[in-house]
Amino acid sequence: MEEKEFRQEMQKKVEGIEGILRKYLPEEKGFQKTVLEAMNYSVLAGGKRLRPLLMQETYRLFGGKDKVVEPFMAAIEMIHTYSLVHDDLPAMDDDEYRRGRKTTHAVYGEAMGILAGDGLLNFAFETALKAFSETDSCGAAARALTVLAAKAGVYGMIGGQTADVEAEGLEEVSLERLLFIHAHKTAALIQAAMMVGAILAGAAGEEVARVEKCAYDVGIAFQIQDDILDVTGSLEELGKPVGSDAKNRKQTYVTIKGLEESAKEVDRLSREAADILDGFGGDGEFLKQLVLSLINRRN
Amino acid sequence: MEEKEFRQEMQKKVEGIEGILRKYLPEEKGFQKTVLEAMNYSVLAGGKRLRPLLMQETYRLFGGKDKVVEPFMAAIEMIHTYSLVHDDLPAMDDDEYRRGRKTTHAVYGEAMGILAGDGLLNFAFETALKAFSETDSCGAAARALTVLAAKAGVYGMIGGQTADVEAEGLEEVSLERLLFIHAHKTAALIQAAMMVGAILAGAAGEEVARVEKCAYDVGIAFQIQDDILDVTGSLEELGKPVGSDAKNRKQTYVTIKGLEESAKEVDRLSREAADILDGFGGDGEFLKQLVLSLINRRN
Repeated sequence: MEEKEFRQEMQKKVEGIEGILRKYLPEEKGFQKTVLEAMNYSVLAGGKRLRPLLMQETYRLFGGKDKVVEPFMAAIEMIHTYSLVHDDLPAMDDDEYRRGRKTTHAVYGEAMGILAGDGLLNFAFETALKAFSETDSCGAAARALTVLAAKAGVYGMIGGQTADVEAEGLEEVSLERLLFIHAHKTAALIQAAMMVGAILAGAAGEEVARVEKCAYDVGIAFQIQDDILDVTGSLEELGKPVGSDAKNRKQTYVTIKGLEESAKEVDRLSREAADILDGFGGDGEFLKQLVLSLINRRN
Repeated sequence: MEEKEFRQEMQKKVEGIEGILRKYLPEEKGFQKTVLEAMNYSVLAGGKRLRPLLMQETYRLFGGKDKVVEPFMAAIEMIHTYSLVHDDLPAMDDDEYRRGRKTTHAVYGEAMGILAGDGLLNFAFETALKAFSETDSCGAAARALTVLAAKAGVYGMIGGQTADVEAEGLEEVSLERLLFIHAHKTAALIQAAMMVGAILAGAAGEEVARVEKCAYDVGIAFQIQDDILDVTGSLEELGKPVGSDAKNRKQTYVTIKGLEESAKEVDRLSREAADILDGFGGDGEFLKQLVLSLINRRN
């Protein structure tokens, strides 16, 4: 697909995802209105909607055609968002801006930032559970939810977050710890996105395992690219100051391995991910292009 | 049942619950070890194990005999615990002690307090999902999980927490808001406990609705009793300073209605709850005594 056509197709798909998200977000009313506002503010603050998009496209790759995937698409974006809201808190990264907008706690206060994050994580499960009434296969929905929960939790994203927080206090971060952080903090939720899509579409266990490996490659490459962009990007493009990792003395793949070696690794991982996708046959052209564009993005 | 016999029976049951909790808690290892330690520290800090106990006894009342309830019992205690961990954070109630022990963030730091809470909430869902492999009825497990998630979330406990946080900034708290707070912050999780027990045991929809009402009464009465004890209790008995609500200028049912009126309402609610339980027939004697002892506790 030509770059321009791909961009148009992508925009159309992301608009579709925005619609799905809005459908599942809570109405802002009642005595708990403020937390609902803070949740919606956080989710609607923008973002690439990468995880729901990857889920939807993987679902389609394996022949999925139903609405059962939609609650899960909304759910994974809620989980991703809550992790950012809590990550931005004063006791964590203490960020006042994200994507050029005030962070949730900066607008609603710290207590509401904590509660909005909790609310989104819990609401993600409430939302995903709605898929159970959209399917005849309770078993597949339960397996998908189990993967989503595992990849979001202490053996997934939260585990990576923990190792990351602790790495900030260390003089030296080993490559082993760094890869653990990337595999869990970043790759785990990308794995959840693609695996849930595959499981809901009825992919075989062995296929889901290959999807997991592909998503690992995508996640690690995406994170290394993020670290590369932290060095080479600009405030204008990213909405955050250049080199914030270096400013915070945060060790990354780039600070350990250097820019050149990092770029090579991104390249290797992206080729491996593309090969796995090719191996599935089916109409995976858009998904492959998406994966490659994410990995090789310039901002 | 005689008071002494009841206490012995209760102790035996709570020991059983401790065993179930330990079975489902994570092993403390890996790069994310600290968050796992903080989670276990939080859950094993003690507590009455009221919610799992109510779940188990309601399950039994409706004839449940399997292990499917156990993951849910562990899950609801994890949810209760995470809510305390986040509630104790400096940006929330800023408590350094709970039940006479240092709170999680006081021991592990604020970032780890946030992550341990997130970890426990997520792990609660991971744990409850294990019930799906313990049952032939995927549908009942999904309904039970849906109730648990709803009662824990922004239309349940987190909603009540939000209204409570905001009430602290108000000159006057209306009785309507106060009852919303009690119904959601406290009663919702007790409702979840008893409803999940009933659903997993195969109770009919109309029975589950009566259980929900009974649990509402128990929850409201429990909370009013808590507010009464805040005034009349002592540091020794409660492990926290006397009258912390008054100290924090927090308005409660007691500060609005007075001690006498509050005690009367506790009495009315406890009789209503007992009547509902009597209406189910079956062996609900222990559950009734439990409910009444909780409501009318002296510490």
